[in-house]
Amino acid sequence: MAKVCLVLGAGAGIGGNVGKKFAREGYHVALCRRSDEEGLNKIVAEIEAEGGSASGHLVNAVKEGAIEDLIEAVEAGIGPIDVVLYNLGSQIGGRSLEDTTLKVFELGWQMATMGLFRVAKTLFPRMVERGSGTLLVTSATASVRGNAGQHSHAGSMGGRRMLCQTLNAEFASKGIHVAHILIDGAVDAPDTLGKMMGADAFQKLREARGLEHDGLMLPEKMAETYFHVSQQHRSAWTHELDLRAFSDLAWWNHAA
Amino acid sequence: MAKVCLVLGAGAGIGGNVGKKFAREGYHVALCRRSDEEGLNKIVAEIEAEGGSASGHLVNAVKEGAIEDLIEAVEAGIGPIDVVLYNLGSQIGGRSLEDTTLKVFELGWQMATMGLFRVAKTLFPRMVERGSGTLLVTSATASVRGNAGQHSHAGSMGGRRMLCQTLNAEFASKGIHVAHILIDGAVDAPDTLGKMMGADAFQKLREARGLEHDGLMLPEKMAETYFHVSQQHRSAWTHELDLRAFSDLAWWNHAA
Amino acid sequence: MAKVCLVLGAGAGIGGNVGKKFAREGYHVALCRRSDEEGLNKIVAEIEAEGGSASGHLVNAVKEGAIEDLIEAVEAGIGPIDVVLYNLGSQIGGRSLEDTTLKVFELGWQMATMGLFRVAKTLFPRMVERGSGTLLVTSATASVRGNAGQHSHAGSMGGRRMLCQTLNAEFASKGIHVAHILIDGAVDAPDTLGKMMGADAFQKLREARGLEHDGLMLPEKMAETYFHVSQQHRSAWTHELDLRAFSDLAWWNHAA
Amino acid sequence: MAKVCLVLGAGAGIGGNVGKKFAREGYHVALCRRSDEEGLNKIVAEIEAEGGSASGHLVNAVKEGAIEDLIEAVEAGIGPIDVVLYNLGSQIGGRSLEDTTLKVFELGWQMATMGLFRVAKTLFPRMVERGSGTLLVTSATASVRGNAGQHSHAGSMGGRRMLCQTLNAEFASKGIHVAHILIDGAVDAPDTLGKMMGADAFQKLREARGLEHDGLMLPEKMAETYFHVSQQHRSAWTHELDLRAFSDLAWWNHAA
Repeated sequence: MAKVCLVLGAGAGIGGNVGKKFAREGYHVALCRRSDEEGLNKIVAEIEAEGGSASGHLVNAVKEGAIEDLIEAVEAGIGPIDVVLYNLGSQIGGRSLEDTTLKVFELGWQMATMGLFRVAKTLFPRMVERGSGTLLVTSATASVRGNAGQHSHAGSMGGRRMLCQTLNAEFASKGIHVAHILIDGAVDAPDTLGKMMGADAFQKLREARGLEHDGLMLPEKMAETYFHVSQQHRSAWTHELDLRAFSDLAWWNHAA
Repeated sequence: MAKVCLVLGAGAGIGGNVGKKFAREGYHVALCRRSDEEGLNKIVAEIEAEGGSASGHLVNAVKEGAIEDLIEAVEAGIGPIDVVLYNLGSQIGGRSLEDTTLKVFELGWQMATMGLFRVAKTLFPRMVERGSGTLLVTSATASVRGNAGQHSHAGSMGGRRMLCQTLNAEFASKGIHVAHILIDGAVDAPDTLGKMMGADAFQKLREARGLEHDGLMLPEKMAETYFHVSQQHRSAWTHELDLRAFSDLAWWNHAA
Repeated sequence: MAKVCLVLGAGAGIGGNVGKKFAREGYHVALCRRSDEEGLNKIVAEIEAEGGSASGHLVNAVKEGAIEDLIEAVEAGIGPIDVVLYNLGSQIGGRSLEDTTLKVFELGWQMATMGLFRVAKTLFPRMVERGSGTLLVTSATASVRGNAGQHSHAGSMGGRRMLCQTLNAEFASKGIHVAHILIDGAVDAPDTLGKMMGADAFQKLREARGLEHDGLMLPEKMAETYFHVSQQHRSAWTHELDLRAFSDLAWWNHAA
Repeated sequence: MAKVCLVLGAGAGIGGNVGKKFAREGYHVALCRRSDEEGLNKIVAEIEAEGGSASGHLVNAVKEGAIEDLIEAVEAGIGPIDVVLYNLGSQIGGRSLEDTTLKVFELGWQMATMGLFRVAKTLFPRMVERGSGTLLVTSATASVRGNAGQHSHAGSMGGRRMLCQTLNAEFASKGIHVAHILIDGAVDAPDTLGKMMGADAFQKLREARGLEHDGLMLPEKMAETYFHVSQQHRSAWTHELDLRAFSDLAWWNHAA
């Protein structure tokens, strides 16, 4: 039976590409996203066309019980989940304090922090019993520094990063590998960045950065590192790493 | 008219002592806590006995609209709030993932993150209009590193710290000083640490640390630094500082 | 007998102003700098004109034995040093790797790291015997993040910050307070920033920032915080804090 | 012609094992260490026995001109260096301030910071001309927090980390990948940890940690991640990552 990799937040960017990578390496990939069934089916079809195994699941993660039911269903119907990628973000673009409603602030936390907590609550007891498991968490610069307009994003991703550390502290010695992957730059991801910016602005950014010169982060390349981390020997686990394009300044560097 | 200092979380530890310090320096101090009216009245009475001015307010901060109404009432009935101390914590003692319910996890976030966001939403527009204001935030080591058993605490304080940075990024240039004060040690605070540990264990800790040798952090001494930060000239503001007893190792130091 | 405060790096910016503050609070201030005897005498004269007590010492700190001899001479001739401010920097402006010679790189380390180590080696055994003492260290953003052109500066200040932590870990419990003060912005300091930029460019910066609107950090205001930290009760010591002007972005915030 | 990987600090731990990994992947590996010609020849022989290509170089890196001459010689005699691993450390075990001489403190800096600077000074101009190159730097927890007894180690590794950031800021966009690899735990390395502890104590540690249960970090497993990082696509480079055994607490976690 194939190992199972569950991807929460499986769009055409990081989620879908990490899914494809795991499928190529022999995993069954359970791909979940909230909406766009067509887009979801497309990724499943692409994986199957390459000879891989995948399933698509439309799930609204913030709904009560939804994450719990999904994990239950995958474990029961497909098999024990070896690797889970938590790829839900809370980026909503720059919004002043005034324009950030309590509702938006709470939704950010539901996506960035509470959802991850629920995944761990549901899945870790099973992984502990099996003596192994991997939780890959896509994270953002907002988890290590707050910027103007990022009240909801940073206020929730900061909690996510600390939660990853508490999970690691309790579960590493039980064989569960938690990796906090800090994405520091713009990803060539039409489903997230593209939608946030609008199609035209996104295309302009792609052209400005130079698609052929890999100015944007290419998710199929990022997926290589996600996979590597999931395969590290337990005597040499990475808990945190950053990823950025060679052409970008790191978040801690101002332009001169 | 006296300047006004609002203290959210005014127990017998940091909150009450910072209140007393501001009262001694001529501020009217509006002291708020969720319960223990007797304890609250006692602090007010102590301040008045010293010739200071204070008022007590019983408020359940996580209740919808409660923080907003309180700020409204203080501004309307007492005067413009110059300094606010956000002193609500989310420490609940060490709890494994299994023992941390979704409800507890959410409550931690309501106390540590959402409540602070609501204070800023309500108060900052007024401070911006007045061109000045100070937000002092008591924080914890859990805001910079997650430890086993701290899922709710770290998962919410991490968000708090990033939120302080986003607020600072948007509002410093508008004259609002946000200070994130990282308490790295056990405070001699019967209302919080004392209740969490139980009276007996807390008394034993006090004796072990040596009350006369100031092994615990003394909140009346900590209050001196809270006040100093609130009075810094705007050309030299501190956004973050730590406080710990000389006899304690810093959070980043293991015992050998 | 007056308490003694030793200032290493006593120019017209932070060093001189911290010296004046301590003199006003009753300390004898021993002011040391490498050159500009006239400038040094001017600060001593200003302190004495205010009724304070000060002495001037021309010392090249990187010379073998110079720091050690100075501390010996002050302790023997003036009195036990209660507070020492280490205010020597290694900022040389932006230089590419190519333009940073091995000699410059070593000099940066001598100023930023080795000099501080020598102060601690010489003075801490005396402070331990006396059961108390304070080391204030002026530091820079370069101690927490490296930027292009800062090879020598960051490569040495990073060591300085870690050294402060090792000293704190060994000596806090022996009554010695080490504080790492992170200056995150341009100081209105003609002897350092002014010389580095050139008199004209510095004056233009002052005008652009608006002297009357305190856009630059004012060293006499910063001195208030230096002094406060030195007087903290040992149950509530600050090891690290930042200082920046309200009008500046923090180092971790990019312009949008 | 084979690509060339230069290893500075090629003992039987990380250095030798990273060398073997690169040799297996088709690189010629130039292995350098200060002493123990026999040990060096053994690694070369092991690589060649596997069909790989390697050369051994005895070099005292802190000697003036030694690193520069070595790089010159490898480039001229073997070929352009594609990847360099800087694996020299400055760990000397716990030493109090009193027991840390100026000479030891300087030597730590020579090994940890200056040596790395000299590698970059010598090699980066060549890599810039070629448009690509990779610098892998083995680093330690001492680069992010100072502990008692670590004056020399932390005081130099802190500089190393900041230097890596300055190099990255100047050279990433020119195609040079700098990776700071933070080793947070005890490595199964007889040539460094073994010598520092003494053979008996080291063997006891190995037995206590359980060799068969991979309690110590296994350098041949760590080498997989070193290699992966060196092969990352330039649209997704890692600048910093940590490595620790699953059974160890992270440096930021105290035992309860």
